[in-house]
Amino acid sequence: MCTSIIYPAGDYYFGRNLDLEVDLGQRIVITPRNKNLEFREMPNLEHHYAIIGMSIIRDDYPLYFDGINEKGVGMAGLNFNGPAHYFPVQQGKDNIASFELVPYILATASSVNEAKKLLANANIANLNFSDKLQAAPLHWIIADKTGASITVESTIEGLKVYDNPVGVLTNNPEFPRQLVNLSNYRGISPTAPENTIAPKVDLPVYSRGFGSHFLPGGMDSESRFVKATFAKMHAPVGNSEVENITNYFHILQSVEQQKGLDEIAPNTYEYTIYSDGSNLSKGIFYYRTYENSQINSVDMHKENLETSELITYRVQNQQEINHQN
Amino acid sequence: MCTSIIYPAGDYYFGRNLDLEVDLGQRIVITPRNKNLEFREMPNLEHHYAIIGMSIIRDDYPLYFDGINEKGVGMAGLNFNGPAHYFPVQQGKDNIASFELVPYILATASSVNEAKKLLANANIANLNFSDKLQAAPLHWIIADKTGASITVESTIEGLKVYDNPVGVLTNNPEFPRQLVNLSNYRGISPTAPENTIAPKVDLPVYSRGFGSHFLPGGMDSESRFVKATFAKMHAPVGNSEVENITNYFHILQSVEQQKGLDEIAPNTYEYTIYSDGSNLSKGIFYYRTYENSQINSVDMHKENLETSELITYRVQNQQEINHQN
Amino acid sequence: MCTSIIYPAGDYYFGRNLDLEVDLGQRIVITPRNKNLEFREMPNLEHHYAIIGMSIIRDDYPLYFDGINEKGVGMAGLNFNGPAHYFPVQQGKDNIASFELVPYILATASSVNEAKKLLANANIANLNFSDKLQAAPLHWIIADKTGASITVESTIEGLKVYDNPVGVLTNNPEFPRQLVNLSNYRGISPTAPENTIAPKVDLPVYSRGFGSHFLPGGMDSESRFVKATFAKMHAPVGNSEVENITNYFHILQSVEQQKGLDEIAPNTYEYTIYSDGSNLSKGIFYYRTYENSQINSVDMHKENLETSELITYRVQNQQEINHQN
Amino acid sequence: MCTSIIYPAGDYYFGRNLDLEVDLGQRIVITPRNKNLEFREMPNLEHHYAIIGMSIIRDDYPLYFDGINEKGVGMAGLNFNGPAHYFPVQQGKDNIASFELVPYILATASSVNEAKKLLANANIANLNFSDKLQAAPLHWIIADKTGASITVESTIEGLKVYDNPVGVLTNNPEFPRQLVNLSNYRGISPTAPENTIAPKVDLPVYSRGFGSHFLPGGMDSESRFVKATFAKMHAPVGNSEVENITNYFHILQSVEQQKGLDEIAPNTYEYTIYSDGSNLSKGIFYYRTYENSQINSVDMHKENLETSELITYRVQNQQEINHQN
Repeated sequence: MCTSIIYPAGDYYFGRNLDLEVDLGQRIVITPRNKNLEFREMPNLEHHYAIIGMSIIRDDYPLYFDGINEKGVGMAGLNFNGPAHYFPVQQGKDNIASFELVPYILATASSVNEAKKLLANANIANLNFSDKLQAAPLHWIIADKTGASITVESTIEGLKVYDNPVGVLTNNPEFPRQLVNLSNYRGISPTAPENTIAPKVDLPVYSRGFGSHFLPGGMDSESRFVKATFAKMHAPVGNSEVENITNYFHILQSVEQQKGLDEIAPNTYEYTIYSDGSNLSKGIFYYRTYENSQINSVDMHKENLETSELITYRVQNQQEINHQN
Repeated sequence: MCTSIIYPAGDYYFGRNLDLEVDLGQRIVITPRNKNLEFREMPNLEHHYAIIGMSIIRDDYPLYFDGINEKGVGMAGLNFNGPAHYFPVQQGKDNIASFELVPYILATASSVNEAKKLLANANIANLNFSDKLQAAPLHWIIADKTGASITVESTIEGLKVYDNPVGVLTNNPEFPRQLVNLSNYRGISPTAPENTIAPKVDLPVYSRGFGSHFLPGGMDSESRFVKATFAKMHAPVGNSEVENITNYFHILQSVEQQKGLDEIAPNTYEYTIYSDGSNLSKGIFYYRTYENSQINSVDMHKENLETSELITYRVQNQQEINHQN
Repeated sequence: MCTSIIYPAGDYYFGRNLDLEVDLGQRIVITPRNKNLEFREMPNLEHHYAIIGMSIIRDDYPLYFDGINEKGVGMAGLNFNGPAHYFPVQQGKDNIASFELVPYILATASSVNEAKKLLANANIANLNFSDKLQAAPLHWIIADKTGASITVESTIEGLKVYDNPVGVLTNNPEFPRQLVNLSNYRGISPTAPENTIAPKVDLPVYSRGFGSHFLPGGMDSESRFVKATFAKMHAPVGNSEVENITNYFHILQSVEQQKGLDEIAPNTYEYTIYSDGSNLSKGIFYYRTYENSQINSVDMHKENLETSELITYRVQNQQEINHQN
Repeated sequence: MCTSIIYPAGDYYFGRNLDLEVDLGQRIVITPRNKNLEFREMPNLEHHYAIIGMSIIRDDYPLYFDGINEKGVGMAGLNFNGPAHYFPVQQGKDNIASFELVPYILATASSVNEAKKLLANANIANLNFSDKLQAAPLHWIIADKTGASITVESTIEGLKVYDNPVGVLTNNPEFPRQLVNLSNYRGISPTAPENTIAPKVDLPVYSRGFGSHFLPGGMDSESRFVKATFAKMHAPVGNSEVENITNYFHILQSVEQQKGLDEIAPNTYEYTIYSDGSNLSKGIFYYRTYENSQINSVDMHKENLETSELITYRVQNQQEINHQN
């Protein structure tokens, strides 16, 4: 399924692994400030913050999987099949279709706090983009360049906005339960634990890494939530943009889904199609793909953001091997 | 510590993660056929198979961490601190210092079977390379282009050569115990298990990846052994050399040690310094480093192997980001 | 903390382990039909169903930990420290103090369905029994002789009544989260799993009991919930009352807390003070204690239930060893 | 399969759980000092130490499952199917059949040290008691009233005698591997661990017993070894014989196999048929059975030990419920 993190390293880096069984043809898409954004039940936005992120485009509309805006707010939608519940359009509410939520928030919020206010009266409407493109069951993480982070879930009980103290999101179950489960792993540590099971017996620390012996390594959502949290919380801060983005991708790599390990239908396997991450202060978008281990980047500020047409970049999906001889 | 694998994909790919807290200045080193290889207690080898691999060089001697030869035999030495025991030089035995074992085997064995014969009368001698360069406690994995694989361990009980049915090696404890432990994880699967704990109760498979929920994710040796085995056993076979080497590195990535997660002394952390892998049939050596996610390659057959001086390549350790704008 | 189960074996058996660090002086208490039961905010009950169970008595009031009534309804209160939230007395609601809930339900409900109706308008009021006897944070399991079972939780979100499909209750976290966690263990089985981690490798089932290798054995609430469910779901049905009650106590024994293993304050340890269980059809109450492994019984129908004074039995807490010579 | 422990509590208590799918008709058997003990390849013992323990009797020969002698030495044989290997009778060795080993050691050793000497030249001979009664694959634990404890294993590599620093034995794999595995659980504790996974995040200790969250609860041999060690190492010392033997049985109860949880063949389940334990100083033998939770005892010193015929007691297998009304 997916994992999203925010990594503090001076600047904040935000992004996600997209784990899926098919490549949907996504591209890097910049929505400039004057691109007219239409919504089903909300007023159009003719002028707004510029956005960069991974997206498919249908009918000239950017269906973002995740992205950031020029104000340093990032947002990602992750699979939430089961608990996710969208509601009929409701009078007196800000009715936003699930597929509109990322562009809506990124176009208008300059911080997590502003996003919270925008969500205060929101109703995630059960509208499909089209008959062919049904709404996916999602929940969302929103983060900003101050390090703030929230989780947004629309379930049968209504719309919930949770502070996200770990800056990590994966998938089911509901976010509060992920935190409960994380408590079970409080003792995971970079260092070996004291011998408390049999204190007077010599029980050698026969291997390095003993402090993480009970760290889960599964492909499932709870396992990835715990492992990504551990990796993120103990990741060092680099001395440069390159070092930071290198560390960032290693965190995501710790919960990568390798091909062949998660069979969702006979001979169909989910895997980490791409990993991306942006410097929330600088507006630079980085990514790698399963097929191409090199890091690629697109800098939104190298484009003219005062325009009105979507700007797209092809995903570099070809392995570029550096032949030294 | 370290993880080594052999990955079958038409051709066989062999290599390892080197997990350590310091970069020892290794380079890619080709030992051509006529480089005179001296041994402490064994006859010199003036002509032998050519070797390529990761190595440091001291006094013009290649101290290989791992490598392959032109016949399609690969070998890696991995930390085995604790059980590793080397013996005094013994009359009537083939006395080989631990640091000589990789060049000795790769220089003279054209298959795992030949390596077994060479080891039949061997004694791993407790000789240091120099006062400053003490012998490291190691065990070894040897594999060849037919997919055969063995583990070599010199412990207080003597020299043991085990068939390695999984083609994986990590560190402590002794290899047979790693296999016993692997049995505990027999039920790990790419698919979700049947509900057998409470068959009549509806227990939703609330997340994909349920079949690997109990897969370990720790940095320790047993955890990496289990996870690498699972990743390797279910990895798909690619349609090209590039696809295969891509898959290969993803397997190693599943047991990568991220920085900050394995504290071996105050503020000192072990991490995966490099990952390498070679096509055992083609003699092409590939690698990546923690700092540089791009894959690099050196092809031994692009050099003149009928020479007598070591050929070295610098490790490309700089992150090369592909800026798309 | 505590574990409660309902065990189907022709008749249904219901009861619990009480895990605590102090013995509170409980006794087996029968509340006969005409004992006047007073409630703080609800009308007195002068005539009602007779009750038997474990209870302390204060001011002639039976503060039941757990019990059953003559109609075959059983109920137990278990520690729920953290999520438990009681509310101020509320106009228009049936305001019941937490310590009144067990006698209230058992006095008036002849089935789980009737209990549900009684709870439909209930408010768990934040009243203490006295200044010295503060209300404990609890949640409840109610079961009946048809095998029906519900969980009752009063949290900050209000009063929730959940169907309990497993017939097990322990402690935190909230009941739905326990079910989510149980899903993680769906593959636990009395039989060894197939080798799916490395299908072509011989990985011996070196021990019996392999199917339960990942069954948790901790003292914590999630571990006990999973283990008790497994033990209960696979327990055989006996051929007699004695065989059934024997099996019943073995299920509870599987999650017994041994002395010394759960330190809640320096040198203070929680342990399973008593285990009890009743045949919901026959009105016979059985129990054992940590200090006395023999099973004791009290049959409510051997007393005159048409009386008005509490009937009490001392807990037999002395180990009676049968000396064969 | 089985679990054996030695529990220090002033005096030492030694015994075991017998986990099997069939009751073999065992009885409590006292072998008095002058009972002539014959061995296949060793001299008869006409006078020797008296023994008490669980045993079946065939042809007037006591085939002990476990027992103790009057000098305070205890010994138990536990299933070791797989690694167990017995050898042909060997000239110059003390050839002892596997089924003779318990009576042989208990008849002649007054301490673990003496047992070690007796084993120094021993060969476990592959002799069957009879065609109908084949030798079972076993390994053994020997303990004495000073608290000393060893494990004895005869495998393809020969006879190994290991010091047993934990005083616990279960089944496969070999004893050193059990100790390696125990190291994985060093951090298990009666107290909750510090939050080291995400130190700055509030991760509530939402349940008591958090320190044992990763304690295994499976029926398999490794799980029972770890859990019994934890339970034993932290068990309190009682103030009386009754309190000690009560605590002792609770330790064994922590690894009891409930009926229905370990299916060894279709509809055939292994379970803990009996638990026994002896005060090694006092020569009192205690036991319970799955069907009868009351503790029973037989005191060897209440018999005339200067006799020559086996003395037997029936196993009390009937549940004796104490009806309080």
